[in-house]
Amino acid sequence: MKSIFRQVALIGKYHAAVAPALAASMRTALEEIAEFLTSQGCHVVVERDTAAVAQIEGYPTADVPGIGTQCDLGVVVGGDGTMLGIGRQLARHGTPLVGINQGRVGFITDIPLDQYRTVLPPMLAGEYDEDHRTMMHAMVLRDGHAVFDALALNDVVVNRGATSGMVELRIEVDGHFVSRQRADGLIVATPTGSTAYALSAGGPLLHPSNPGWLLVPIAPHTLSNRPIVLPDSAEIAIELVAGRDASANFDMQSLASLLHGDRITVRRSQHRVRFLHPRGWSYFDTLRKKMHWNDGA
Amino acid sequence: MKSIFRQVALIGKYHAAVAPALAASMRTALEEIAEFLTSQGCHVVVERDTAAVAQIEGYPTADVPGIGTQCDLGVVVGGDGTMLGIGRQLARHGTPLVGINQGRVGFITDIPLDQYRTVLPPMLAGEYDEDHRTMMHAMVLRDGHAVFDALALNDVVVNRGATSGMVELRIEVDGHFVSRQRADGLIVATPTGSTAYALSAGGPLLHPSNPGWLLVPIAPHTLSNRPIVLPDSAEIAIELVAGRDASANFDMQSLASLLHGDRITVRRSQHRVRFLHPRGWSYFDTLRKKMHWNDGA
Amino acid sequence: MKSIFRQVALIGKYHAAVAPALAASMRTALEEIAEFLTSQGCHVVVERDTAAVAQIEGYPTADVPGIGTQCDLGVVVGGDGTMLGIGRQLARHGTPLVGINQGRVGFITDIPLDQYRTVLPPMLAGEYDEDHRTMMHAMVLRDGHAVFDALALNDVVVNRGATSGMVELRIEVDGHFVSRQRADGLIVATPTGSTAYALSAGGPLLHPSNPGWLLVPIAPHTLSNRPIVLPDSAEIAIELVAGRDASANFDMQSLASLLHGDRITVRRSQHRVRFLHPRGWSYFDTLRKKMHWNDGA
Amino acid sequence: MKSIFRQVALIGKYHAAVAPALAASMRTALEEIAEFLTSQGCHVVVERDTAAVAQIEGYPTADVPGIGTQCDLGVVVGGDGTMLGIGRQLARHGTPLVGINQGRVGFITDIPLDQYRTVLPPMLAGEYDEDHRTMMHAMVLRDGHAVFDALALNDVVVNRGATSGMVELRIEVDGHFVSRQRADGLIVATPTGSTAYALSAGGPLLHPSNPGWLLVPIAPHTLSNRPIVLPDSAEIAIELVAGRDASANFDMQSLASLLHGDRITVRRSQHRVRFLHPRGWSYFDTLRKKMHWNDGA
Repeated sequence: MKSIFRQVALIGKYHAAVAPALAASMRTALEEIAEFLTSQGCHVVVERDTAAVAQIEGYPTADVPGIGTQCDLGVVVGGDGTMLGIGRQLARHGTPLVGINQGRVGFITDIPLDQYRTVLPPMLAGEYDEDHRTMMHAMVLRDGHAVFDALALNDVVVNRGATSGMVELRIEVDGHFVSRQRADGLIVATPTGSTAYALSAGGPLLHPSNPGWLLVPIAPHTLSNRPIVLPDSAEIAIELVAGRDASANFDMQSLASLLHGDRITVRRSQHRVRFLHPRGWSYFDTLRKKMHWNDGA
Repeated sequence: MKSIFRQVALIGKYHAAVAPALAASMRTALEEIAEFLTSQGCHVVVERDTAAVAQIEGYPTADVPGIGTQCDLGVVVGGDGTMLGIGRQLARHGTPLVGINQGRVGFITDIPLDQYRTVLPPMLAGEYDEDHRTMMHAMVLRDGHAVFDALALNDVVVNRGATSGMVELRIEVDGHFVSRQRADGLIVATPTGSTAYALSAGGPLLHPSNPGWLLVPIAPHTLSNRPIVLPDSAEIAIELVAGRDASANFDMQSLASLLHGDRITVRRSQHRVRFLHPRGWSYFDTLRKKMHWNDGA
Repeated sequence: MKSIFRQVALIGKYHAAVAPALAASMRTALEEIAEFLTSQGCHVVVERDTAAVAQIEGYPTADVPGIGTQCDLGVVVGGDGTMLGIGRQLARHGTPLVGINQGRVGFITDIPLDQYRTVLPPMLAGEYDEDHRTMMHAMVLRDGHAVFDALALNDVVVNRGATSGMVELRIEVDGHFVSRQRADGLIVATPTGSTAYALSAGGPLLHPSNPGWLLVPIAPHTLSNRPIVLPDSAEIAIELVAGRDASANFDMQSLASLLHGDRITVRRSQHRVRFLHPRGWSYFDTLRKKMHWNDGA
Repeated sequence: MKSIFRQVALIGKYHAAVAPALAASMRTALEEIAEFLTSQGCHVVVERDTAAVAQIEGYPTADVPGIGTQCDLGVVVGGDGTMLGIGRQLARHGTPLVGINQGRVGFITDIPLDQYRTVLPPMLAGEYDEDHRTMMHAMVLRDGHAVFDALALNDVVVNRGATSGMVELRIEVDGHFVSRQRADGLIVATPTGSTAYALSAGGPLLHPSNPGWLLVPIAPHTLSNRPIVLPDSAEIAIELVAGRDASANFDMQSLASLLHGDRITVRRSQHRVRFLHPRGWSYFDTLRKKMHWNDGA
């Protein structure tokens, strides 16, 4: 049984400042995985910063866009955060990703580090389940001009200033007025993001196969301002009507300060992220584990 | 401008026991609407029970299945409950429905009685917006045999007995185990039903254009048993594991007593309900009114 | 170090039908505890039904009221349910209770079965923390006459019929009109009951030292019908205005069918339940364990 | 019927920058109320800033502390915010307050401007109901030293920075460890504050006669971190364990930046605020109006 993937990128939690002891153990893990992938018939390319931080030698390196053009699979070693960051960047290239977690199982990185030797071979041979995740393309418009632009795989969040009262937001969907809301903020989440911040703010779980966006107000003044699930074909526009020091963030990665009258627009990106899971994978198994259902509680 | 609909059924809140004074005012309203529809070039057929209860004479009558085969439009005079009941019955025939409300505006019956003379003519001439609502086809399986069968436009609800403790339910989606839940019950709702009982139980609003089902536990024992939004292509199975005197109801219209081991299955019906609205109609306008958003609260 | 308690009652989970194997292990546990208490200088009285079910011989027996008059301490072996049931009956006698749990730790029964030999001696010697729990005295009034009367240590619950829609309830506090609510039902809970059904229905946690009652609507139609915390000096009256087959239950133990116009009144009982805990006991330690806080989630 | 209050302070919404047109109408209202109070036998003292902003002449003026020592009643014209601000300052003097609202009825300012001529006279004659509100005395401790000190009548709020992730807080009550919580923040609210921010964040309503504090986490990561009601005799300590740019505010009036290791302590102030209401006043009438219960929804 040989790998159907030829050029395989190996990507670690490169972007974080890592403690020396952890760096050493990460290096060992990455080297072993690289050797293992080679033994399966893959040409391994190590992500450039990963190679630098973990001091991996003996393999060609590439930056993330380079991986997108050269590789037909990415193996990510880290947590959900790492996986989401890489997924967002590789989506335009359609490169599928497999996630190996070092700590506890994540929502997406579902192969434990001590099991990859048995789990990966059938996946490399083509025995896997695909899981596509939609992304949002968000813009901040000021006086009709785009002043900010970002992709989000989890959520777009509008926030009040830390030391000021509520923001007032005017929401439109496909040009239809929805409501004015006064709240601490508003979350627009993908199905992927529905298990993150949106859940803490009172939102429902949104299955990845439901083509929807989730609108969740944060501590809304009006109690009937409940979470809304929209079709992901909808274009959402949020106008900042009132509130000091408001800002918007995109997957908690990039940040835009907002002025009154600014409009944040959110629509579906034309790209999706492709995650590969072991055959027989079920979203609900992951959910059950992460949500502590049936823990005997 | 002539009606593009030829055979138009007129349907009142026929099934309810109506006080004499109300019956008289309903009769007047129905007669005037019938005359008006005739003046627009429609052949009016009055629903049989409506004709009997309201004593409408001079028009041909038909029962609801007859309306389904003979008419190309139904005009319903009543509230959301009446509209949903008729919608469920006519869905298999594809007959579109227009709703005139006598009391306050409903989620679906959005033409006030005192405005139909101006609102209906353009709609009859083809100037309308269509709004399709999915329905659920639910069954109760006992020892592998279907012992109950129903359509639901709002929700399928599994309930504990009134005087007993929680039920324990085992949920599967497309054959995948989701969780065991102990709760007062469980609601499976359509987008249409998301503004009804599911909302009271803590569910989100689900836009009719989102092809989803909503799973909302009622007073669940485990706090992380949050509402879940599934794709409506999913088949949901709920097994009664424990609990006395449990039952299932379907749009609060039909009821099945449940035994341990019974499975309630829910899948999308092949039929949808077609509601017609005045051109420019927005779901959000209705929502805003019904949810008392922006009441200055 | 000798016991300051002379007459000590031993009470098991007597009221439940118990499987033979379990009965045998319970018998062993109870006999060992009885011997241990004797060794500490206590005169042991075994609760009559406990003695009969577990076939304990060689000790005097008494029914629960008899225990109330004869004993100055009760040692309960079982879960929270057993403890609450006995507590409700002994409250009028002021007999303090210690709880030994056989399964997992409860909110109240906090001594694990395998630790009583080290935990009990200092408690018997007077080294304990007292924890007083308020009780509700509830009545059902029909045409001005009390037709039902009960004590509740957890909650008084008004329920809709299983197969009918919402009930409509009219709530008064100290003669002041509060609101009419349409809902599946209404829970009036003590601090003790705030971790039970009320929590599932969306209520807050109410510390036992806060002298309050909790009013929690179950799936209310009006979203702003939020839980309310009242002073426990308040007298609450709930009138059934509408709804078929409604009922009220008291600690899920006793049940009253309700007619339209019936009033359920709730006021603080003059009796409190006295639970004894090992010195240094903290309500929050129990809460943290039972709520799975800081499980690394 | 003469006023039992001799020195009566008149206090407007003095602290706000007011538009000229509004200032004029406020001036008229204040002058008329001053004349009316004089006609009832009161010596009117106008709050100094109110007099300056509204250009009221012909009456002695005093600042708020001066009012506290000289006056036996304060009549506040404004909204709840004004009333709370004055109440916090006058609490140490025990000066009772009456609230006249210019806009819509508030939770506390319950006399409409167009009704004071009929409502005030019996109140001045001693026919009123008293409503006492507890206050919190909060401190920020750094390395064991108090670096900040404030009174709060509504709430003490710990907030994450606007552009950073969750804070991690360690909560203690009376020296007992409660939990570590990761969240957007945490609200400690009085009964008065339970209808403000705490309500938006998911807290219950806390009746002013319940001697309690409310702990409400804002968008907590762990779903079982539910609101908790404590006795107001408890001392609450909140330690900032992690999180950038965190801050604490007190009634949204004063603000303290927080460093890791800072402890915010909250205990009951020895002073209470005294509000006077027309005889027969009911907290529930106000609640029903403000919460839009029984609006026919």
